[in-house]
Amino acid sequence: MPVTHRVAFSPSGRQGSVPDGARLLDAASSLGVEIESICGGRQMCGKCQVSVETGEFAKHGMVSRASNLSPVSAREQAYWDHHVRTEDRRLACAATVCGDLSIFIPPESAVHKQVVAKGAAERVIEVRPAVRQYYVECEAAQLDDRRGDWERLQKALHEQWGLHGLSIGLFALRQLQSALRDGGHAVSVAVWQGSEVLRVQPGYAEGVYGIAIDVGSTTLAGYLSDLRTGQLLSTAGTVNPQIRFGEDLMSRVSYAMTQSDGTARLHEAVVAGLNELIGECIRDAGVSPEQVLDLVLVGNSVMHHLMLGIDPSELGGAPFALSASGAFDLTVRDLGITAASPAARAHLLPCIAGQNGADNMAVLLAEMPHRKGGAVLVADIGTNAEILLGSRDRIWAASSPTGPAFEGAQIQHGQRAAPGAIERVRIDPGTRAVTFKVIGSDVWSHEPGAVLPATGICGSGIIEAIAEMRRAGIIRADGRFEERGAGFVIAAAHQTSIGAPIVVTQNDVRAIQLAKAALCAGIKLLMNRAGVTRLDEIRLAGAFGSFISPRHAMAIGMIPECEVTNVIAVGNAAGDGARIALLDRETRAQAPGLARMVEYVSIAVEPSFQDEFVAAMALPGGPAAGSAPERSRRERRRQLALAGAAARDGES
Amino acid sequence: MPVTHRVAFSPSGRQGSVPDGARLLDAASSLGVEIESICGGRQMCGKCQVSVETGEFAKHGMVSRASNLSPVSAREQAYWDHHVRTEDRRLACAATVCGDLSIFIPPESAVHKQVVAKGAAERVIEVRPAVRQYYVECEAAQLDDRRGDWERLQKALHEQWGLHGLSIGLFALRQLQSALRDGGHAVSVAVWQGSEVLRVQPGYAEGVYGIAIDVGSTTLAGYLSDLRTGQLLSTAGTVNPQIRFGEDLMSRVSYAMTQSDGTARLHEAVVAGLNELIGECIRDAGVSPEQVLDLVLVGNSVMHHLMLGIDPSELGGAPFALSASGAFDLTVRDLGITAASPAARAHLLPCIAGQNGADNMAVLLAEMPHRKGGAVLVADIGTNAEILLGSRDRIWAASSPTGPAFEGAQIQHGQRAAPGAIERVRIDPGTRAVTFKVIGSDVWSHEPGAVLPATGICGSGIIEAIAEMRRAGIIRADGRFEERGAGFVIAAAHQTSIGAPIVVTQNDVRAIQLAKAALCAGIKLLMNRAGVTRLDEIRLAGAFGSFISPRHAMAIGMIPECEVTNVIAVGNAAGDGARIALLDRETRAQAPGLARMVEYVSIAVEPSFQDEFVAAMALPGGPAAGSAPERSRRERRRQLALAGAAARDGES
Repeated sequence: MPVTHRVAFSPSGRQGSVPDGARLLDAASSLGVEIESICGGRQMCGKCQVSVETGEFAKHGMVSRASNLSPVSAREQAYWDHHVRTEDRRLACAATVCGDLSIFIPPESAVHKQVVAKGAAERVIEVRPAVRQYYVECEAAQLDDRRGDWERLQKALHEQWGLHGLSIGLFALRQLQSALRDGGHAVSVAVWQGSEVLRVQPGYAEGVYGIAIDVGSTTLAGYLSDLRTGQLLSTAGTVNPQIRFGEDLMSRVSYAMTQSDGTARLHEAVVAGLNELIGECIRDAGVSPEQVLDLVLVGNSVMHHLMLGIDPSELGGAPFALSASGAFDLTVRDLGITAASPAARAHLLPCIAGQNGADNMAVLLAEMPHRKGGAVLVADIGTNAEILLGSRDRIWAASSPTGPAFEGAQIQHGQRAAPGAIERVRIDPGTRAVTFKVIGSDVWSHEPGAVLPATGICGSGIIEAIAEMRRAGIIRADGRFEERGAGFVIAAAHQTSIGAPIVVTQNDVRAIQLAKAALCAGIKLLMNRAGVTRLDEIRLAGAFGSFISPRHAMAIGMIPECEVTNVIAVGNAAGDGARIALLDRETRAQAPGLARMVEYVSIAVEPSFQDEFVAAMALPGGPAAGSAPERSRRERRRQLALAGAAARDGES
Repeated sequence: MPVTHRVAFSPSGRQGSVPDGARLLDAASSLGVEIESICGGRQMCGKCQVSVETGEFAKHGMVSRASNLSPVSAREQAYWDHHVRTEDRRLACAATVCGDLSIFIPPESAVHKQVVAKGAAERVIEVRPAVRQYYVECEAAQLDDRRGDWERLQKALHEQWGLHGLSIGLFALRQLQSALRDGGHAVSVAVWQGSEVLRVQPGYAEGVYGIAIDVGSTTLAGYLSDLRTGQLLSTAGTVNPQIRFGEDLMSRVSYAMTQSDGTARLHEAVVAGLNELIGECIRDAGVSPEQVLDLVLVGNSVMHHLMLGIDPSELGGAPFALSASGAFDLTVRDLGITAASPAARAHLLPCIAGQNGADNMAVLLAEMPHRKGGAVLVADIGTNAEILLGSRDRIWAASSPTGPAFEGAQIQHGQRAAPGAIERVRIDPGTRAVTFKVIGSDVWSHEPGAVLPATGICGSGIIEAIAEMRRAGIIRADGRFEERGAGFVIAAAHQTSIGAPIVVTQNDVRAIQLAKAALCAGIKLLMNRAGVTRLDEIRLAGAFGSFISPRHAMAIGMIPECEVTNVIAVGNAAGDGARIALLDRETRAQAPGLARMVEYVSIAVEPSFQDEFVAAMALPGGPAAGSAPERSRRERRRQLALAGAAARDGES
């Protein structure tokens, strides 16, 4: 009977018998434990490092000793001579089993890695990239063998890695013969989706990188990762060069509609921005363009179309028809991206609807609200609020036209969130004394050391101001000021950099009322559609969502009632979703199915939206804070008239 | 019981019962008869024209009358009002069956068309192109339908044409929305290989063209065809611009090896040539670049690699390793071809071996020698002779290094086949009086009216001259002149344009002996390998093969004995093969399998080649014409020494 030993692997806990003399790599594989290897077990890549856990393991019925592994061979030693050895690490492809063993596989040696994206919300990302590297040894060309190098490489990849049905890109094909020559018939190849060879390098080589890019209408944000480890190596942001054709989306759509080459110019502008961004990412990380082989691009539907060079005109009005909603796999060459390898691939996530783009698809991938157990709302608030509601494995989505008020536009002293902007406001309900805090300062205005003068008020500041004004009785439930005037002063002239007080005007209150009513009505619609009466969790995505105070947002009725500790800022969920799609090809592959699964509610055609909108105009949270009184039909009719006036920007 | 009628279709002969009132198009389909339609039966394309054969058809048991078809409807009449109506043609998508009918489907209305390539050999080509056009009507975008236009088009193509799993190219995607708008939700799409939409045009549109290109080291030859009808619309030829880097293949390989950017420059040169050629083809045919959607490119292995931008260095010497032997489907964009639609595809046929390229693959597709019944040899003779031998469903191939002598190089008064070149020679065995004929002249030199002076002697001329010199006893079986001297005069000084006689020298005879021995030895090797002792047919491809006299070629032992009427010039088989691959995607798809099926004989490593070569040096067909005497071993040894001397270009 052949001699066998017990081998247990942690952390998986798998164990079993393996024959004496078996390589650890093979022993693990025979027990269904996958250890990483790029070189295919040739003691070159060092990716299969493991360590022996010594001691008595009663549950496995064995005593594990380091000496139960074969001694370090000359070849393994050659590897360690050139690499840093942590603790008593061994190469699983070199060490063989000669007694009972408990083997620890460190996370970096596992085939199925995970990385944690650290941000407002920590997300665990599975590392299953679309582009993987394989080291392979080919047969030499022979006079009586008329196959080409590529056919020999295909055979070797099939035999050594089980890959078959591969194609090869032109750029890899051009590298192939010299790489084989320089590598002595051994090459490292980068393979996309297990189907296409993108790159060939001589001998053993490492280094496959990818960049996830969130293409916003204002800002492009890039995240460069090592596709093998999943590690985030650099991030960069740059202004979307399209901004010179218009600040907001509609002006870009209008540029595309009215200029004969408008779409092409907008396409070229965003591509120029992408090239700049990619360049910044790789410079910061010390990565060469040739090493960047995969891109994931997300953006709203207008950005999605303009990246593809598609005229976005029809996204500018009903029925908001997308030219294409599906996911796209492209080459960077066809997009005009030159800052990455010419062999690189680019993937665009699908759009959910004409008004609910691939950026919200990325939010969906990052949040998966339908899988969290309760009724979970995710809102990404910008000029449009993109809303997802997940409940019992179903997903509803809508896009609500909040307008730019939350971003500080249409507000007399409004500004973007930047140093100097008032972001926190408190009003004493008794004295109506105001204190505030500006971005970039750690102290409140009444505390010692507050030197930074206020430059304006940003979205989160105006929300707090209005909530506090309402609580202090300065404004009424319908939004009107108790006392008419030029507005309520938040910062006195001497506290500002503009030589004048910063005030909240009646018009400002109206603008915020309209914006928050649109958001809240959209959420209510989705809740009605989903049969959800109360939210278990509200997750606020995006920069604005990270800064607002959940308590104040709820106080003005911007978001529905919810346990305040369950209102969570989740940061740049779109960027995280793009990173997830970059690192995890399986989640990427699920995106089109998820997009189809979403039950999209088109607010514009929803008959009840107007009612919900009107109902949401009111500002609860007044001095007698408590449950809102049941509104009579007469009162609702009055509010309808009021909303009409507000919508016309009228003020009496 | 429902009323039915008998309907018979010719030329297929299919017949059966169809219900009263059935559309002819559907009736045909139900009986397995396919009638062409681009518009999907909407009386727009007129591709389904048929006519009624009237009379009594005893074998079908019926009387067919034109009145057994429904009268021409207003909609059908609208079509005829705008189109020329041949005879009593009807649209099968409009006419319905109201009695027994015999229906004739003219060739142009058949789905499975054939075209006849007219040349030295007439070839029937099946028209089953890789790119086909479909007219399709889509649903309009709706506010509550969040699919994109592309998703709606996919659905329509699936429902109306049974196409599924389609992808769409970026260029088509950019055309899609405006095409749908301009076409009132109806578009015509061009689909490649039933899998990718390449082009979208508004409404009903026609016109998909392709170009087959034979990329020779000297000349590029293009053949533009209508991909629907298979019709050849124009041909063009242009010089391969690589020629400035060297006349012959080896000097180009050497340029690629020695210059750092040599491969890129050679690639750019051939691509520039392709662009020029495509431009010429489409100008001649009045076709726009956007209508050219498919290219098939063939060339020897060095051209194959240089078209792809692959360094051909390793093709310059043993083991003649190809970088890739397989077929390639590429976009013209990646190749740098700009003269066709940017959405166009390019297909490269596979190479058979490092010294037997895609051009010979095209010859194989055109000739299919293994399917002709007997033992059939195909030789495409140039600097290398590429040889195919088919017998009993097997194919053998070899490439024999004939050198450039057959093209007039290395011959004292040699020249390429061009006006003024001596192409025919006769010598009276008794008087040794010479008469000749030059290219561009219809009469022999001794006949009245022969005014064109000779400029040199081309390949076919030198073969006839040597055969006739041998028959007249001027040279011996071993190739030596009976009488030493400066050479044998073919044209006297007064008959030439060079002010001197045109002669055949001892060196010329040696050069031709070497070339024909290489060719013949290669053929013999293949015959030995195939176990073939006598050829049933010899098919000579290429320009040289079209001009030589089979009788003289056989007389000097250039080709093995064969019934002289079965030695056939088949013209530009490589070009015809490229056209076949362009028009018939099924044959194109068979090429890689055929290439693998070929049993390639690498002459350089074949031990018996040297013996065969030496044996083939002798010139049979002397004055005592008849069977060659059995050569003794001593005589063979003497010839071996002689061949060695000849190979060193020595002359005693």
